[in-house]
Amino acid sequence: MLSVWALEGIPEIVPGDDLVALIASAARGELQGGDIVVVTSKIVSKAEGRIVAADDREDAITAETVRVVATRETPNGGRTRIVQNRLGMVSAAAGVDASNTPEGTVLLLPVDPDASARAIASGLRTLLGAEIGVIVTDTLGRAWREGQTDSAIGAAGVHVFEDLRGQTDAEGRPLVVTMPCVADEIASAADLVKGKASQRPVAVVRGRADLVGPLDLPGARSIVRPLERDMFRLGADEAYAEGFAAGRASA
Amino acid sequence: MLSVWALEGIPEIVPGDDLVALIASAARGELQGGDIVVVTSKIVSKAEGRIVAADDREDAITAETVRVVATRETPNGGRTRIVQNRLGMVSAAAGVDASNTPEGTVLLLPVDPDASARAIASGLRTLLGAEIGVIVTDTLGRAWREGQTDSAIGAAGVHVFEDLRGQTDAEGRPLVVTMPCVADEIASAADLVKGKASQRPVAVVRGRADLVGPLDLPGARSIVRPLERDMFRLGADEAYAEGFAAGRASA
Repeated sequence: MLSVWALEGIPEIVPGDDLVALIASAARGELQGGDIVVVTSKIVSKAEGRIVAADDREDAITAETVRVVATRETPNGGRTRIVQNRLGMVSAAAGVDASNTPEGTVLLLPVDPDASARAIASGLRTLLGAEIGVIVTDTLGRAWREGQTDSAIGAAGVHVFEDLRGQTDAEGRPLVVTMPCVADEIASAADLVKGKASQRPVAVVRGRADLVGPLDLPGARSIVRPLERDMFRLGADEAYAEGFAAGRASA
Repeated sequence: MLSVWALEGIPEIVPGDDLVALIASAARGELQGGDIVVVTSKIVSKAEGRIVAADDREDAITAETVRVVATRETPNGGRTRIVQNRLGMVSAAAGVDASNTPEGTVLLLPVDPDASARAIASGLRTLLGAEIGVIVTDTLGRAWREGQTDSAIGAAGVHVFEDLRGQTDAEGRPLVVTMPCVADEIASAADLVKGKASQRPVAVVRGRADLVGPLDLPGARSIVRPLERDMFRLGADEAYAEGFAAGRASA
């Protein structure tokens, strides 16, 4: 049985807030060993002071971008930019968020979400004397599928993959290629109770204590597919244009 | 509070099995209105007799493929093929499954997973007199991220998107672009209790009765992004090669 619930009573977060204390207080003594605390990156960014003045969200996106993957005009004359950020993550708008922030400011992603997760997990473990896992989430679009799902961009003290590669199916054959990204599945489960418009940025997932472990387990960075293994490192239009130019030059 | 659990006692499924009766029996009277039953496509395919003789899984994949999106050699000399199938879905191997099937056979996806979901939901509603939603899942890889997550390939009686487009954030600005794909998030949550190697192909998600509705709500087909809106309709290498050939011819 998996239980997932949102914590009530997390206040509006401002720079310098102690997320460990606020989460422990909102949990009212309910957290126990094996629980996984799922924290929306937005409040991690706010606590870490990642709110910056920006008259133009587009400039902020450019500043956060390491590599442009694909660009498309939107029907209203804007642009959708799918980019890779410093963390290696591919997402729309490099995680730059202009919702739920004061006018004239934008919120950037945490500098190192795995480190943020580790700090929260370490703090909760010390404060509560219980082995807690932490996942920091962001809302990501997907290739080929409409809509978004919450995914893990930071993780500490929790296995991000369930490695079935040593296991066999019911016929005794190895389950060679299956490696469920349980961190992303936990992030998605938590989103079902957190909501987007509400002020419930923290959820607890209980029932997969087997996934909780030492703080030095690989973080969410290990979910990012390396560029050399990535068949979709460029949008189709962008790759075609590169190929066209090279073909023309070679003729 | 969201509760997610797997049903125990679903037997090995064979063609012609009555999934409605088997699910209702395994649920032992526990299902209630607003519950969402999440069914692994593998048992839907088996009940529908989608197991076919195939000496070569590669031939079966070719037969199921409408359009090749990307291909890559694997280190062991095989090939990974990302393809679009008749349902519009982009996935590895067109959903052709050679695990958990007798030697010399493969399992194809259900012909119409939305129709399969509708038949199960309709049957459960009639049998139990309760408004049940149904999601049929498959395990899908993703662009840019390692590992797989379970996603919705069929749905009935459940909203596949949570439409927040009319809502506003805490500052009163519209949440214009956010459209969480709750069907995929529910599929992921269910995978956390079903496991891959175990014989627990059905889970129940309780706590989001607000997402359950009429049987004629749009199905999982509506999650598939139309080709003309898809920035990743071809792999980067494939698009580059097409562009190169066209550029060379144009010079």
